[in-house]
Amino acid sequence: MSDYLQHHLAEIRRAQQRIESYVRRTPLLPTDLDPALYTKPECFQPTGSFKVRGAFNALLSLRESPNPPPGVVAVSSGNHAQALALAARTAGLPALILIPEDANPAKIAGTRALGAEVITAGITFANREERLREAAADRGYRVVHPFDDWDVIHGAGTAALEVVAQLPEVGALVVPVGGGGLLSGSALAAKALRPDIKVIAVEPEQAADAAATFSSRELNVLPTSPTTIADGVRSVSVGQRTFEVMVEHGLVDAVVTVSEEEIAAATATAWQRLKLALEPTGALPLAGWLAGRLPSAGGPTVLLLTGGNADLKVVARLLADASRQGRDDS
Amino acid sequence: MSDYLQHHLAEIRRAQQRIESYVRRTPLLPTDLDPALYTKPECFQPTGSFKVRGAFNALLSLRESPNPPPGVVAVSSGNHAQALALAARTAGLPALILIPEDANPAKIAGTRALGAEVITAGITFANREERLREAAADRGYRVVHPFDDWDVIHGAGTAALEVVAQLPEVGALVVPVGGGGLLSGSALAAKALRPDIKVIAVEPEQAADAAATFSSRELNVLPTSPTTIADGVRSVSVGQRTFEVMVEHGLVDAVVTVSEEEIAAATATAWQRLKLALEPTGALPLAGWLAGRLPSAGGPTVLLLTGGNADLKVVARLLADASRQGRDDS
Repeated sequence: MSDYLQHHLAEIRRAQQRIESYVRRTPLLPTDLDPALYTKPECFQPTGSFKVRGAFNALLSLRESPNPPPGVVAVSSGNHAQALALAARTAGLPALILIPEDANPAKIAGTRALGAEVITAGITFANREERLREAAADRGYRVVHPFDDWDVIHGAGTAALEVVAQLPEVGALVVPVGGGGLLSGSALAAKALRPDIKVIAVEPEQAADAAATFSSRELNVLPTSPTTIADGVRSVSVGQRTFEVMVEHGLVDAVVTVSEEEIAAATATAWQRLKLALEPTGALPLAGWLAGRLPSAGGPTVLLLTGGNADLKVVARLLADASRQGRDDS
Repeated sequence: MSDYLQHHLAEIRRAQQRIESYVRRTPLLPTDLDPALYTKPECFQPTGSFKVRGAFNALLSLRESPNPPPGVVAVSSGNHAQALALAARTAGLPALILIPEDANPAKIAGTRALGAEVITAGITFANREERLREAAADRGYRVVHPFDDWDVIHGAGTAALEVVAQLPEVGALVVPVGGGGLLSGSALAAKALRPDIKVIAVEPEQAADAAATFSSRELNVLPTSPTTIADGVRSVSVGQRTFEVMVEHGLVDAVVTVSEEEIAAATATAWQRLKLALEPTGALPLAGWLAGRLPSAGGPTVLLLTGGNADLKVVARLLADASRQGRDDS
């Protein structure tokens, strides 16, 4: 094993010890779709997504450090916000979360309910990074980036450690990619333990920057945040650390893309066949599998289904559409 | 332990050995709702419900018997149909399923896809028992009753064995009740292993025959099949064997009822908070818990969530309603 992999595997193992009392070892579930297909439903984590793995590792590391900051700050309207709020409360540090003012009120309320201070006034998609730096400077708070942070990446990588322990013969591990925190953590853990495991990323066609970065070997940056039903992967590019893992170290085997229709259909299939209430982003790996777009592997495929914090209205519409579709087919 | 419990525990353990290669050991999941609340999601079983436990035990027992019948027959429009079709195919016996002609076409197609012969022509709710006896007599097939059958009950009881192994400190086990196969299997297993575990049944107010039977100690039979969103528990009374377990042997601690609104809300809460795609019947235990109607227990509560074969149209409407409700609240 290279020094690079050895270093990161050691960090991921340390993360696992650090967070094990706070996050769940989600089960590995067989499916009725294919005997060689398994899912790891991270929607069963506290706050409903895998994001607690990285958030707890980052916050507990900060608390262990010689000079812990007086608090943490992040900008997020999604799963990172709630995960960070819970981790900060647990670690006994204040958390300030900046949420753009047009965000879903339920997510704002959810983040506040977990004890975080939330600021929405005057926060827009355009000014959010600047406002984040100002808030961090004003208060001396540490910024916890949702994906381009080694502590977050090492925390995220603990899911792949569990997969290898739960199914030693795993042949492929399939994850959604947005900023790439989960992808790089998974690739580091899987390749360090079992170089033959294929690590495959799935992203929306509408947000295909990671696929472009993977094939061109140059960082592709979208001009604006993409519009996709998979609202958890709307970052304009992968992080620098993910670029390093994926392109410079070549630890990712494929990046495949799926259409909006395929993501919607996979979300409905997750309900109907897997009995899992996923958000569309969490259904990306299933969309890739259903589309027959995943490269073949030398063992069973594990889909890492990242979260379940769906907008109910969106999901209600998807299921109604699937129900009409089903009647037409019968 | 009484001879009665000892006998049934031995049968449930034999069932567990018989079916273990064919059914899944579903996980025990913690929840974000309460640290003392766990779920056992039987929606992750093959065919999407706990019914495979009883169906496989019945079919494999028949195959082991000195004179196996040439086939099996049942009347069902629900989860028993698909479970029996799969178990019969696995056991290598033909299965004939009578499904009333107004049933959901998707369920008919699902049962046929599992290799069963399905007859719908001329089958109505009123004549189905007579048609079942005729079909059994014509072909010499064995009737496999969906709940009033000891093999089915012993198979169903294996879920409670797993719960006690997965969470030895369990204080209460909560299950839906319709005909009572799962309730009696659970009560026999739980009370044999740990007499202090409270065994609690939940049923719709619209179908409150089990509650009436429990309190009056006389078999209550509804005049017609009740109308409830929880379409898996529409039997007009509990079976004779369940009456024996519940009333004569006193192995059930409480039967609580929930309104249609409470069942609908619990189904939406299962999606939103538990990330489980349940059918309304499968959400009955959660409805009882959310309503605060479960008696207190000396340890954590486990909700046995029985199935996930929801009518998508119904669920889409429930989620849309819950989404509007959420916006009104915020």
